[in-house]
Amino acid sequence: MSNEDKNFVKEVTNIEEDFAKWYTDIVLKADLADYTGTKGCIAIKPYGYAIWENIQKYADELFKKNGVKNVYFPVLIPESLLQREKEHVEGFAPEVAMVTEAGGKNLDEKLCIRPTSETMFCDLYAKWLSSWRDLPFVYNQWCNVLRWEKETKPFLRSREFLWQEGHTIHETKEEAENRTLQMLEIYADVIENLLAIPVLKGRKTEKEKFAGAEATYTVETLMHDGRAIQAGTSHYFGQNFTKPFDVKFQNRYGKEEYAYQTSWGISTRLIGAVIMAHGDNRGLKLPPRVAPIQVVVVPVMMNKDGVKEKATEVYEKLRDEFRAEVDLRDNYTPGYKFNDWELRGVPVRIELGPRDIENNVCVMVRRDTLEKQTVSLDEVNNKLKELLEDIQKNMYAQCEKIREERTTTATNLDEFVKNLEEKQGYIKTMWCGDTACEDKIKELTGAHSRCIPFKQEKIGNKCVCCGKNATTMVVWGRQY
Amino acid sequence: MSNEDKNFVKEVTNIEEDFAKWYTDIVLKADLADYTGTKGCIAIKPYGYAIWENIQKYADELFKKNGVKNVYFPVLIPESLLQREKEHVEGFAPEVAMVTEAGGKNLDEKLCIRPTSETMFCDLYAKWLSSWRDLPFVYNQWCNVLRWEKETKPFLRSREFLWQEGHTIHETKEEAENRTLQMLEIYADVIENLLAIPVLKGRKTEKEKFAGAEATYTVETLMHDGRAIQAGTSHYFGQNFTKPFDVKFQNRYGKEEYAYQTSWGISTRLIGAVIMAHGDNRGLKLPPRVAPIQVVVVPVMMNKDGVKEKATEVYEKLRDEFRAEVDLRDNYTPGYKFNDWELRGVPVRIELGPRDIENNVCVMVRRDTLEKQTVSLDEVNNKLKELLEDIQKNMYAQCEKIREERTTTATNLDEFVKNLEEKQGYIKTMWCGDTACEDKIKELTGAHSRCIPFKQEKIGNKCVCCGKNATTMVVWGRQY
Repeated sequence: MSNEDKNFVKEVTNIEEDFAKWYTDIVLKADLADYTGTKGCIAIKPYGYAIWENIQKYADELFKKNGVKNVYFPVLIPESLLQREKEHVEGFAPEVAMVTEAGGKNLDEKLCIRPTSETMFCDLYAKWLSSWRDLPFVYNQWCNVLRWEKETKPFLRSREFLWQEGHTIHETKEEAENRTLQMLEIYADVIENLLAIPVLKGRKTEKEKFAGAEATYTVETLMHDGRAIQAGTSHYFGQNFTKPFDVKFQNRYGKEEYAYQTSWGISTRLIGAVIMAHGDNRGLKLPPRVAPIQVVVVPVMMNKDGVKEKATEVYEKLRDEFRAEVDLRDNYTPGYKFNDWELRGVPVRIELGPRDIENNVCVMVRRDTLEKQTVSLDEVNNKLKELLEDIQKNMYAQCEKIREERTTTATNLDEFVKNLEEKQGYIKTMWCGDTACEDKIKELTGAHSRCIPFKQEKIGNKCVCCGKNATTMVVWGRQY
Repeated sequence: MSNEDKNFVKEVTNIEEDFAKWYTDIVLKADLADYTGTKGCIAIKPYGYAIWENIQKYADELFKKNGVKNVYFPVLIPESLLQREKEHVEGFAPEVAMVTEAGGKNLDEKLCIRPTSETMFCDLYAKWLSSWRDLPFVYNQWCNVLRWEKETKPFLRSREFLWQEGHTIHETKEEAENRTLQMLEIYADVIENLLAIPVLKGRKTEKEKFAGAEATYTVETLMHDGRAIQAGTSHYFGQNFTKPFDVKFQNRYGKEEYAYQTSWGISTRLIGAVIMAHGDNRGLKLPPRVAPIQVVVVPVMMNKDGVKEKATEVYEKLRDEFRAEVDLRDNYTPGYKFNDWELRGVPVRIELGPRDIENNVCVMVRRDTLEKQTVSLDEVNNKLKELLEDIQKNMYAQCEKIREERTTTATNLDEFVKNLEEKQGYIKTMWCGDTACEDKIKELTGAHSRCIPFKQEKIGNKCVCCGKNATTMVVWGRQY
């Protein structure tokens, strides 16, 4: 083992000791992103961006199958537009970045960099909408947004981030509500089937809902350390924005009516969720379906006759079917390379040395379990296909297991606090529906209500906080 | 003919009478884009954005085949970074939009919204680069940029636009120069093979080159009215930025050296070029390969038994192989629909009425020539495939013909002015290489040098302006 090898794994902070430090180690050392000269904004590097491209591709195909059309609207929103809906501006004004000078002059009106685009969409929808026949508008944009966060963390909370924001208007309340839930199901599909993270679906409480929405629905995910990430949200606005923005149409009965609106988004924050849900002490662990590199061929004793050539041959057969790489770097040892590709979370590594070649085999190593198996070189592609499917399933199962282990119930505050201290995670409780209880729990424990799950259970019948009669079951947890 | 039909085509301004007005008519009426409440910024609507998505897909695949990796870097650049390269800041400072307030406070340092990202890339490359083994960095981002133009025009000159900007650094001058030209060839491929517009390849003069570049290469295109559009540019920077930004590495011989840099970009301006290069009095005319809808089935006498069903059946067979639509709107006449789809530039329309169905045929109408042909319903897909290929070729040929007709030569200024007045277009002349002559020609005629073409010809041997000995042949033209 060279010096490089010995020190390599040590460089990543132990996941059990300091999860936050482990996380930023992975972000930097797996080459996903880096800090920049613009405070609070990251540079997404090729390996990190390729994960985002795979998420985009998968989600965008689902969107299009479900009637969503892509558009692009301005990044700058006149201040007066942003201010037209009262709750919305209260929610976002403190985080907005303002353009006040342009082309060497002070502007007459300040321009906000979009923190989200409900206002811009409503302004244009008002211009384009006249009859019920024009409806629905089901538009989406993939773009950058800015929110001036005080504390930032790569991917999870960055001042600038990439996302998609869908904004739709509809003829009826029912249609809009259905669209809100339809998009939530699509997000659940992306997160569960592509990212191998199980989601908890539900509705946000009044306190936690989006500024200006009637209802916010969420897909919640639980990380390795038991903190939650809100992985995607879908909002139903009713006519909250369409009234102040005058988005109206002549309905089927010849009467003027305001349209019913939704919006929904997922962002590069999902990359943070993938890291935190799956990673371990060796580094990143990527689900095969979203991994930019699904398999890497690492030759052993590369300078022996024919090894490089055979490794290249195996790689060339793989690359038609998989996202494959071959590591022919001559300034690193195989040991260093193994560690390096594990750190980067590549689902399968193929090791190939002179003796393997003699026996017409190679060794396949899974990143999720680190299991090794010897595979005939005639069956590499078939075996890999099976293996990747199995890894995808296993990673989901592992994640679900962690979630189960970290989900508890509580019927009073003592139990709540004790659970959270002993095993941070989701806590299921009954709730009276009063924001005061939510505030108290947050103050006492740092936990937010994650959501009112669609799948309700009965954990007694009293509010965990005030002991009064409960209306619903809520899931709580600390969050990123 | 209903009233709607009669007025429909008239609404588009005649292309020969007022080309500028015709252009904005097409942009608005073909639903490509619209003006917004943010002055100088447009909203790209679904139909316009789908064109951009097709351009992105085609170009991005070529990029990736050629070793380009995508990244995403911050939209905000600290003012001090932008100012570090002298020529660059002089070129861009007058057009920059500035964020001065964020999160409710005045910023200590102003942040520029990127007008282009050479400075941000150099700053990060300096951080990441240490050895020749790290090189090259061949990174690209698809993103929005802002340039505070005084006069704007949808797609062609918008304050905010979408583009890709590639930024690379290399170990040697030769490698960087090769990359500059390699990307220019890729742009030529996109524009000629996808957009069916012939390009003129060459090098920009000192006057016209990018602020801070050693050399700028361009692919120039000629529009229907004889004005030119710079459709894509590729820049070689040498060490102009890498020195002030300290982007250095240890070379193969153990010495410190500054990297050699390139950048290259194409933008949503290409949508403007497609409109202006191909359109006619009926509206937009889209090359099949980039058309969001390649074929539309329009039933005639839709309420007769079986017509709607047959039209749907034909559409369903088409949509597996082509980007197809069926127009079943019940509040428009077939005549209106024909006009509408012509305005939107759909390459082929299929008309299908009761008599056609009886005879097991349909009528295919090409948008480029308006020729009609009767086709057996058993051969629709095969015939359409042929037809689309033929349309793509023919549109390129038509565009090339216009360019030939609008290309003249001049050996003195009188001839130059006369040519430009009689038939606006490209003018080939010899040139002494002096910027003073370029300035004089611009002042006198409004024409800029388009480029010094790679394919040189001899148009005499004296400069068209000063009459002194000429060094090169230059192509001139008025521009958008």
